[in-house]
Amino acid sequence: MFKHIPPVKYYFSRNKEFLRQIYRLTGFYPRNISIFKIAFTHKSASIQFDNDKYINNERLEYLGDAILAAVIADYLFSYFPFKKEGFLTKMRARIVSREQLNEIALKLGFQQLVVSQMKINGTKNIYGNAFEALIGAIYIDKGYKKTKKFIISRIIKKHININDLILVDSDYKSQLIEFAQKNKLEIQFDDSEADITEQNSPTFISKVILNGQILGTGTGTSKKEAQQNASREALGKVLDI
Amino acid sequence: MFKHIPPVKYYFSRNKEFLRQIYRLTGFYPRNISIFKIAFTHKSASIQFDNDKYINNERLEYLGDAILAAVIADYLFSYFPFKKEGFLTKMRARIVSREQLNEIALKLGFQQLVVSQMKINGTKNIYGNAFEALIGAIYIDKGYKKTKKFIISRIIKKHININDLILVDSDYKSQLIEFAQKNKLEIQFDDSEADITEQNSPTFISKVILNGQILGTGTGTSKKEAQQNASREALGKVLDI
Repeated sequence: MFKHIPPVKYYFSRNKEFLRQIYRLTGFYPRNISIFKIAFTHKSASIQFDNDKYINNERLEYLGDAILAAVIADYLFSYFPFKKEGFLTKMRARIVSREQLNEIALKLGFQQLVVSQMKINGTKNIYGNAFEALIGAIYIDKGYKKTKKFIISRIIKKHININDLILVDSDYKSQLIEFAQKNKLEIQFDDSEADITEQNSPTFISKVILNGQILGTGTGTSKKEAQQNASREALGKVLDI
Repeated sequence: MFKHIPPVKYYFSRNKEFLRQIYRLTGFYPRNISIFKIAFTHKSASIQFDNDKYINNERLEYLGDAILAAVIADYLFSYFPFKKEGFLTKMRARIVSREQLNEIALKLGFQQLVVSQMKINGTKNIYGNAFEALIGAIYIDKGYKKTKKFIISRIIKKHININDLILVDSDYKSQLIEFAQKNKLEIQFDDSEADITEQNSPTFISKVILNGQILGTGTGTSKKEAQQNASREALGKVLDI
């Protein structure tokens, strides 16, 4: 069951099952059990004290969110030594997206761990949030270095495929239009059929024009394909990929 | 001049003046001088290599931004043990605001350190950005713990007045209206004069109604004061302060 021999206090603990779960998740035994209990306490199951104060995992979630962002920033900084900060920022957002965190928490079995008084009707955010709170708890209990090790070896390497994430959103035309709208730029597609009679299938050429400037040119066997290729080139320029 | 005796290599370095500056800023001598040189290199003074790759401080700024946010999150988490995450998030945003970072960088003398080919016409952001890049460089050179120590002892304790920042934006009415617009809530002020004839000055009473629900009540010797007090109460509820 255990790779490492548990500390003596484990055998005397009333929280044996909980400690076993933390060990399974993190690979270590906590010094401070309470902080991990709090990490799994959803707002709806808050513990009240002093009349107007409540204990739940929201503060730990705030802390864990920041620590997670720092570790991922560090990881990507080394992983992509020649990529620009625009690319790194985008990749980080994909790694720590709400959906991604919820999914990881479910894979780790947070359904069995989170204490909540709420009916979980469709929203999985409480699991992703508890996952961030767990990171906050590890940081408080073990410090930055061990938290970083936990995130890299038990989360990124096991549950995240960096190369897949690079390819997310490959609808370049939609992305480019979204970018243009966000930045209030005028966007135009200039499509034409290539004048090559010796080929069987006509080749389409598309140009993307942003605020009057040609930013991308693409070809394809359909107008759609040509526009996608032109958009990809333009996106590469505007997003620094 | 020096509190600590510099390492031997200092005396043989061609970068004596630069090392002295880093020592003045951080209290230590860097292991890796280059990373600190990069931290002060603005995009406009990028060093090109391999034809299409550029070295400047933008990647370090991305890294430093994340590390700074984590350290401040940690600091506030301990500093305010009973405040909710909404308050902590807001305080952090004030500490790491663009203006605040620019101001700190100027106080630290970044004007003399940043290498740039740009005419600095009005924008001080390049100093604030270089300050974040410096944090990235310290993190790479010395690790998280020393970076945290640097941020707390040399930045927060010397340049940031937490109590002043709590009081920033005390125009509660504007803040509440902004909040309502952002969250698409209907906001109304219901003002009346208090029916107290024995007092000299009439007392005003104001109620703030958000989506039909009274969220705050305030009194004052003017309508304005009553509205401010009512707004403060309502803000306290909606922002978890």
